[in-house]
Amino acid sequence: MTTAPSFQKTYARRRVLITGGLGFIGSNLARRLVALGARVTIVDSLIPEYGGNRRNLAGLAGRVRVHVADVRDWPRLPRLVQGQDFIFNLAGQTSHMDSMTDPQTDLDINGRAQLAILEACRVHNPTLRIVFASTRQVYGRPDYLPVDERHPLRPVDVNGINKIAGESFHLLYSRVHGLRATALRLTNTLGPGMRVKDARQTFVGVWIRCLVEGRPFEVWGGEQRRDFTYVDDAVEAFLLAAARPAAVGEVFNLGGPPPVTLHRLAELLVELNGGGSFAVRTFPADRQKIDIGDFYADDRRIGRKLGWRPRTDLRTMLARTLAYYRRELRHYV
Amino acid sequence: MTTAPSFQKTYARRRVLITGGLGFIGSNLARRLVALGARVTIVDSLIPEYGGNRRNLAGLAGRVRVHVADVRDWPRLPRLVQGQDFIFNLAGQTSHMDSMTDPQTDLDINGRAQLAILEACRVHNPTLRIVFASTRQVYGRPDYLPVDERHPLRPVDVNGINKIAGESFHLLYSRVHGLRATALRLTNTLGPGMRVKDARQTFVGVWIRCLVEGRPFEVWGGEQRRDFTYVDDAVEAFLLAAARPAAVGEVFNLGGPPPVTLHRLAELLVELNGGGSFAVRTFPADRQKIDIGDFYADDRRIGRKLGWRPRTDLRTMLARTLAYYRRELRHYV
Repeated sequence: MTTAPSFQKTYARRRVLITGGLGFIGSNLARRLVALGARVTIVDSLIPEYGGNRRNLAGLAGRVRVHVADVRDWPRLPRLVQGQDFIFNLAGQTSHMDSMTDPQTDLDINGRAQLAILEACRVHNPTLRIVFASTRQVYGRPDYLPVDERHPLRPVDVNGINKIAGESFHLLYSRVHGLRATALRLTNTLGPGMRVKDARQTFVGVWIRCLVEGRPFEVWGGEQRRDFTYVDDAVEAFLLAAARPAAVGEVFNLGGPPPVTLHRLAELLVELNGGGSFAVRTFPADRQKIDIGDFYADDRRIGRKLGWRPRTDLRTMLARTLAYYRRELRHYV
Repeated sequence: MTTAPSFQKTYARRRVLITGGLGFIGSNLARRLVALGARVTIVDSLIPEYGGNRRNLAGLAGRVRVHVADVRDWPRLPRLVQGQDFIFNLAGQTSHMDSMTDPQTDLDINGRAQLAILEACRVHNPTLRIVFASTRQVYGRPDYLPVDERHPLRPVDVNGINKIAGESFHLLYSRVHGLRATALRLTNTLGPGMRVKDARQTFVGVWIRCLVEGRPFEVWGGEQRRDFTYVDDAVEAFLLAAARPAAVGEVFNLGGPPPVTLHRLAELLVELNGGGSFAVRTFPADRQKIDIGDFYADDRRIGRKLGWRPRTDLRTMLARTLAYYRRELRHYV
């Protein structure tokens, strides 16, 4: 266990590119990096089905450079990666269902564009530090819990398959071409800036939207246990991963406070919202095939190696997220 | 252990598509299927750097349909897969080095085109049987030997990463969309029809070419132990995999007779050729990073589940391959 690190020395006046930087985690990372004195450039496609939202940068006008561009647009990549000290690579397609109905788009963003970003780095900026946002979806249905990084990778959807490829490309370029890459496997991440319009980023988004709008929400199943990371803790992990030499070439799970059932999570949200209701439904058949059941991550490895631990308890993260969307919902729906 | 199966009932008058069917294993499979009375259609890109060679179908003129087409040419796929009872999906980029110098092409063929083939099947022919040619390259450097199917997948090159994706897509479409798919992880396969012009398919190809041309060949390292499958045994595995319900949704290693060091293999080839010589060299630095050291497969699972076993010993496979190229070399260089 290390003490909370001072990132000032690492990031002040350094050039940082964030792909997917108008999205949920990317924008929170941008905000933190600006506060640390970094020179932040954001690239984001602002595709309506994805996580990018200009509201996420409220108050940062003029303090970050924003390129509205798609990482699939290869010719733009060399100029974007040149001269950067760090890349936080969060651009991605995150919806499991969309990956099944439009698998090629998922492959193009989560696989092909990642390779293009890495090739641009190899040719134009081979010594930078890059951190890739991977996902617990690479594991599929757990054989055992909590799931550590040695757990077999048996994804249950196209998204999981392509994220494995994206993650593997990063680690390979680290090993073979000398780029210094790290991959973080995220679980459900919650906080201000998350997508609440639909379930494309997380089902919790829709729940929160319904609560704030005073409508009942639906809990599918309910007995599945899941873990949740607060976005500030996720941001801390990205900053650590890029700062610490021990993270080079490594992959780490992120986790959170102890897991809860979805039923319990729903109750807690209703309580914190001071009202609301939900209906428990059986799992829809088309989702059943790609559902992973219980999942929670073993995040002790990143604790041991980088000193990260989740600092925000479930109640706090839900309360903060609800408070944000009670104020900001109109910008997100 | 089962007895040698009669495939007549399974394949006679059935429609079979072989992608990469002018290549080494694909063409041997085509020949066998024609003998079994199947109606064989071949699609092959005939890209000069890959395995396709019209000579591989010598004597079969008029008995198979050949489309010279690239599996990356999506609009052609629906018509090709419609009405087929079986697809043997062997089209691929196989060179480890080419996958590192041109990773996007490897991804487009081994990942993206595979997804397009599967999508074409899902939409136009969802009940067919499909067998995918995967590779031992998905494992990377072994943690233990022999390598069974539970061994972690940690590929050391772009080719291995993309083949994992291709294999995973097949198994996912089997599980979720009802296609009945099987993946076979091939090790070094030897026999008539293999690429001998260069090392893009297997280093043994170059050795055989040199021997037949009366030139010395180079052995890099030499102490690595490897296993080899004779092409007729590989063909048998493909036919079994498509015929047996127990193979649906499964992945199997193929292996061969007991492994040998490359040094011993070289000696054996010189002996069987009745002369020749080789030089032992240290491993070139650029290959070192993606070399996997010792590798041999545990192929007992396909033995237990499908009754396959390698029937051809090393001496026999090398003698037959040498005999073929002594006669046919001019068509392959």
